[in-house]
Amino acid sequence: MFISKNDDTICAPATIPGTGAISIIRVSGPNAFRSADSFISCASGDISSAKGYTIKFGTASDPSTGTVIDEVLVSVFRSPHSYTGEDCVEISCHASSYIVSEIISQLHKAGVRSATPGEFTQRAFLNGKMDLAQAEAVADVIASSNAASHRIAIHQLKGGFSSELSAMRASLLEIVSLMELELDFSEEDVEFADRTRLKTLVDSTLKHISRLIDSFKAGNAIKNGVPVAIAGATNAGKSTLLNALLGEERAIVSDIHGTTRDTIEETLVLDGVLFRFIDTAGLRQTEETIEKIGITRTLQKISQASVILAMMDMTADVDILSDSLEAIIEKIDFGEQKLVILLNKMDSCDYNNFVIKQNTIVSLIDNKGFKSNIINEVAKPSAFSLKDDIYRNQLPFVPIIPISAKTGFGLDTLKSCLSDSQKDILSETDATLLTNERHVQALTDALGSLTRVRTGLDTTLPTDLIAQDLRETLHHLGTITGDITTDEVLGNIFRNFCIGK
Amino acid sequence: MFISKNDDTICAPATIPGTGAISIIRVSGPNAFRSADSFISCASGDISSAKGYTIKFGTASDPSTGTVIDEVLVSVFRSPHSYTGEDCVEISCHASSYIVSEIISQLHKAGVRSATPGEFTQRAFLNGKMDLAQAEAVADVIASSNAASHRIAIHQLKGGFSSELSAMRASLLEIVSLMELELDFSEEDVEFADRTRLKTLVDSTLKHISRLIDSFKAGNAIKNGVPVAIAGATNAGKSTLLNALLGEERAIVSDIHGTTRDTIEETLVLDGVLFRFIDTAGLRQTEETIEKIGITRTLQKISQASVILAMMDMTADVDILSDSLEAIIEKIDFGEQKLVILLNKMDSCDYNNFVIKQNTIVSLIDNKGFKSNIINEVAKPSAFSLKDDIYRNQLPFVPIIPISAKTGFGLDTLKSCLSDSQKDILSETDATLLTNERHVQALTDALGSLTRVRTGLDTTLPTDLIAQDLRETLHHLGTITGDITTDEVLGNIFRNFCIGK
Repeated sequence: MFISKNDDTICAPATIPGTGAISIIRVSGPNAFRSADSFISCASGDISSAKGYTIKFGTASDPSTGTVIDEVLVSVFRSPHSYTGEDCVEISCHASSYIVSEIISQLHKAGVRSATPGEFTQRAFLNGKMDLAQAEAVADVIASSNAASHRIAIHQLKGGFSSELSAMRASLLEIVSLMELELDFSEEDVEFADRTRLKTLVDSTLKHISRLIDSFKAGNAIKNGVPVAIAGATNAGKSTLLNALLGEERAIVSDIHGTTRDTIEETLVLDGVLFRFIDTAGLRQTEETIEKIGITRTLQKISQASVILAMMDMTADVDILSDSLEAIIEKIDFGEQKLVILLNKMDSCDYNNFVIKQNTIVSLIDNKGFKSNIINEVAKPSAFSLKDDIYRNQLPFVPIIPISAKTGFGLDTLKSCLSDSQKDILSETDATLLTNERHVQALTDALGSLTRVRTGLDTTLPTDLIAQDLRETLHHLGTITGDITTDEVLGNIFRNFCIGK
Repeated sequence: MFISKNDDTICAPATIPGTGAISIIRVSGPNAFRSADSFISCASGDISSAKGYTIKFGTASDPSTGTVIDEVLVSVFRSPHSYTGEDCVEISCHASSYIVSEIISQLHKAGVRSATPGEFTQRAFLNGKMDLAQAEAVADVIASSNAASHRIAIHQLKGGFSSELSAMRASLLEIVSLMELELDFSEEDVEFADRTRLKTLVDSTLKHISRLIDSFKAGNAIKNGVPVAIAGATNAGKSTLLNALLGEERAIVSDIHGTTRDTIEETLVLDGVLFRFIDTAGLRQTEETIEKIGITRTLQKISQASVILAMMDMTADVDILSDSLEAIIEKIDFGEQKLVILLNKMDSCDYNNFVIKQNTIVSLIDNKGFKSNIINEVAKPSAFSLKDDIYRNQLPFVPIIPISAKTGFGLDTLKSCLSDSQKDILSETDATLLTNERHVQALTDALGSLTRVRTGLDTTLPTDLIAQDLRETLHHLGTITGDITTDEVLGNIFRNFCIGK
């Protein structure tokens, strides 16, 4: 722990001027009140003598010239009851870059320096207002763009993950204390720590850590979007489908300011979960050659997806359909990935022909040992499984949806099916889901040393060696919440924050 | 006056999420406190029972699901002590578009509707917290990007212009009352209003209104930038000069977020005044033809400028220099515009040759009856005039500055000279300067009817007709502060405000 607390006072705009009605300038540190008083005069008395959690109305002006800068509202927070734990003021002025820079220049004259990115949150951490995992959640909360990722970030911000870790550390700490007590009495050859109880405790902790590490896949999918690949030749209607899916939702997303167009075009929020469509545009170049070549390229993309939409052009030859579907199925890891088959171009396909081809596809799926599941109506929670116990632990369900990307028929069913594919994730969002690679790394390290502890207990390794591995486990867990940290780690974390946070 | 007060409660983000650390959502109206209480729970008690000018810390969550939205700070303002004059809260949350839209959706559920642009300020006007000229100044304060334009906007916001108008109206109202008293006693043929005193008062008011109308040119230049034209052929070093002038300052401007690059590239703030360089790029196409053709095109641009920089390429032939300078001078209105002659390419010019050409230019200026003023050092306030009484009311000064756009020699002198050219404007910024075309129109209308009053007084027009013209003058003045207004006028004004203001 090489971190020293800063005793100076910092300031930064917490909002960007020029894009709204109000701008806020944050000030934190021992001089916060005095520096505000140096250029803001309030009819109702000094800011320095104001109570915490009150607001003063005042006039900011340049004391050297008397020139009025703006009429401002000053929110007063007294240490330790503030975001940073220090004395803080938030100066609310008109959203003009000129005014904001004039106010900051007055603060500079009063000896306040500009804050570095994330420095307010870093101070909150250093002053014990939040641990490191919570501080990291602040950035995630700001970045979260949908219900699911927001829920994970808020859970972490409110200390959900931290309290799990702290419970884990507490029990490991108890073991290590008992072991070290043994070491003190080592000549007497006593065992304070009951080995069987130890093993149980280590086993449950190992399981807990593994579960957390495993949750990263889901957590990451929620944070960055569940990857969905649309596999199929260009003329199968892939772009039409993507446009039809995004078209309607895009208008809704555009209503929210600050969302970039780039992001809009390839992601879609369904039932609060972000889906990210993987570009399989490579297929376009192969329009005139054999479909299989295109498919090969798409197959590389498939490995990155959680859900694969196999787009069948029902006007195509039945052999081509079978071949391409088989090629796709071969590449899917059904333990990790889900397949949805879309029977497209219902609108321009002869009904009898359609049914024949559909039956071929159903047989193909069933012959592979999967359970095909044709859904013509809004998908039930049964799209990928059945509640019925008979079907539990069966091979995966493969939903088959007749659609027309052109007319929009079946798209609601597809959307329900996509949300449904992630319902396990959704139901888990009250539990901790990891979204941060730093945490995964620390937990993986902890898993390694704790596994050595477990092996040691079985092989009656000397207590001091086991205790050392336990200490190492505690160290790794401690780096997550920042009980153990370095300037470098902190620097890496807060560098990515915005100014003013 | 067709305006009805609104009794519903409105909300809007006052900051744009996604671009800072904090977002603010403003709520105003009778339901402001109750709607906030409907989804924000504070450990320290209800928002409804909080005192004004205090801050509550609370947790915002969806009451139907219990899902936490964010931890928020709620600033409480009780009617009439708020921006709008109504009960208001400002909810401060993490700057995430998801969180902001969730909070706004909770407010909607509580019966609050989204505010239209400028609706908070419109309510402030309707509730008598500010008059219309002050409300308009709010937008100007937000838009002002330099000291001078900011000072004008703040002066207007703090009611400087309004109190001038109200003094003017008060005296005109006194006259009209006396005249109407006369009308009541018209059969007795008395004159309550002393005609000589009336004439004096009308004359001084006419002068005041004219001064205000005239101030629009300066006010507008300050608000939108003083237009500066650089006249000269491309190889005279125009682009080099512009880059050299902007280069250094650009870095400073870029430090302030939200300034667009487009704006940066053609404007420059010197001593708190914004200068806007008029594009005379048309000259580039004429590089190989006679300079005069290029100059003709530039001359069209010159009419729009307040300051014209005549760029002389001192390596060029002396006849060409004289001809082009004469062409420029012919187009200048020295009553309204200022000329600065730049003797460029000092670095690549033989000294003797330079002096000969300089003398030719000086003679040309002096022969035209102007006062040439070669300034080799940092410009004194004497660049365009001399304090000395002998020179007062003389023909205009024409500063001549030897420079090298390439090496930067003389550019500080030029900058001082540019600021100096606007020093009348600067010294006037404590007085009211009009920046708003609506105000100019209303004052022009008032000037028209008041001139009729003045003529009427001379020609002994019947008192009732004079009184009618006076009433009309009062009406025009009243539209500025909004004592007289219509929904249409208000609509036009507030439509251009941002949401949340």
